[in-house]
Amino acid sequence: MPHTPVSVLGLGLMGTALASALIKAGHPTTVWNRTESKTGPLVAQGAVPAATARDAITAGGPVIVCLTTNDNVRALLAPEAEALAGRTLVNLTNGTPGQARELADWAAAHGITYLDGGIMAVPQMIATPGAYILYSGADEAAFEAHRPTLAALADTKWVGKDPGLAALYDISLLTGMNGMALGVAQAFALIGSAGIPARDFAPLLRDWVVAMTDGLVPGAAEAIDTDRHVTDVSNLAMNREAHPNFLRTYADQGLRTDLFEPLQDLLDRAVAEGHGADGFSRLSTLLKQD
Amino acid sequence: MPHTPVSVLGLGLMGTALASALIKAGHPTTVWNRTESKTGPLVAQGAVPAATARDAITAGGPVIVCLTTNDNVRALLAPEAEALAGRTLVNLTNGTPGQARELADWAAAHGITYLDGGIMAVPQMIATPGAYILYSGADEAAFEAHRPTLAALADTKWVGKDPGLAALYDISLLTGMNGMALGVAQAFALIGSAGIPARDFAPLLRDWVVAMTDGLVPGAAEAIDTDRHVTDVSNLAMNREAHPNFLRTYADQGLRTDLFEPLQDLLDRAVAEGHGADGFSRLSTLLKQD
Repeated sequence: MPHTPVSVLGLGLMGTALASALIKAGHPTTVWNRTESKTGPLVAQGAVPAATARDAITAGGPVIVCLTTNDNVRALLAPEAEALAGRTLVNLTNGTPGQARELADWAAAHGITYLDGGIMAVPQMIATPGAYILYSGADEAAFEAHRPTLAALADTKWVGKDPGLAALYDISLLTGMNGMALGVAQAFALIGSAGIPARDFAPLLRDWVVAMTDGLVPGAAEAIDTDRHVTDVSNLAMNREAHPNFLRTYADQGLRTDLFEPLQDLLDRAVAEGHGADGFSRLSTLLKQD
Repeated sequence: MPHTPVSVLGLGLMGTALASALIKAGHPTTVWNRTESKTGPLVAQGAVPAATARDAITAGGPVIVCLTTNDNVRALLAPEAEALAGRTLVNLTNGTPGQARELADWAAAHGITYLDGGIMAVPQMIATPGAYILYSGADEAAFEAHRPTLAALADTKWVGKDPGLAALYDISLLTGMNGMALGVAQAFALIGSAGIPARDFAPLLRDWVVAMTDGLVPGAAEAIDTDRHVTDVSNLAMNREAHPNFLRTYADQGLRTDLFEPLQDLLDRAVAEGHGADGFSRLSTLLKQD
């Protein structure tokens, strides 16, 4: 069976990695970039350069778009609605769920099948084990039809028919990572304030954060789904009592405290609202805006 | 060889778990608590109840103290300096490095050997695999002498002669955990805002945060120690561009943004100061107070 043709619009680091993976998997791949010079390395790998975005769109097969922002996606594609009509647009640009839903509405109004994707990988990880892309969109059958092609980029995970879900999952996962990264940054800063080499501390830190993630996440999910947060392990009242020692230590050691002041505020609020006997899972219910 | 006698002062959840582990390991264990009723279950296990703190201190062997705050430790032990003279005091109370150093100074002035400890476990984990206690203090030989006894509580990790180091390591590790927990709480809140059950999302979140911790920590340590933060993977300039989408998504989905506003501030500052090409490790260098 011949490989499906694909077009890739946008050849930044990520777009280039995506196009390269498609070429290596044997797909006839048409590429386009606003700055034409970026097509060179891909053409050397076998890509067909398109002179215009429209040429790339009409070359056949799904149209993968990976730009820096969804504002750029709108600006690029608005004049191409007719060319896109009847085709499948796979938008792998980073953005918000709201932006994905707006683009899906625009696409639906023009007879374009819209799939939104959230790439859980850096460009270097594309087409390597462990990388995956989350997909959502109104037309699950279109996703299934293109899945074998999209699988050349990374493992595929379908998350639902609300086109905003891929972005929501993506941002949720990266939020978990960002929290971890902030904690790790503050931990290294604290250890460094005592002149201890980071590499001496890194194995302890890695093992501790991994063990606590393993311990926290499944139980918190159960507590959230059942709305039963009471714990007999390290409850919020105890953490509220202990946390001023943390802020004091940061200040004593010459560090900023502002990253963790919101935690104190959350712990104070949790206890004031009668949740002192609950575990950390309770905090997720307190993050809704008042 | 007969087991070393030990005394435990303070029988909250943690102190009770510590005393129980010592009893089970065969140590003659004297226990004392301000509220005497808490000694009951331990006496049933074989502990000797002391009528006063002084009786417990003079019963023989190292004196383990585990109270709610170091202010309580000071208040309890200040009148007992003479009774403690020549003995080893092992303070496992949560506190700051500064508090540990002050207590060490007080102890030294009274001829008391002071060891400070940071317990990396909840009470339920005491004397189970994976639990450990960090120790520091001026007299490493005293630690080595008591190590076989302390090993009944949890694995022992010596971190250095500055008595504040056990607390510094403890708070650094818990800071890494707290960051992760805040990220996880925000991630669950975000997923929940779309009506998705937490348990459907939990395996993805767990795997992602663990993989990113594995990926981030060792490289960040190397970057910090060598002060070379430039990365070709997901640099701060890219993260700075992407992060407003995160804050926008939190707000769009009805969540508080304040937990992650300090991250935007850090990313903005990093780029303004010329660190846009650096990785996340750079942030730890920016956490020092101006």
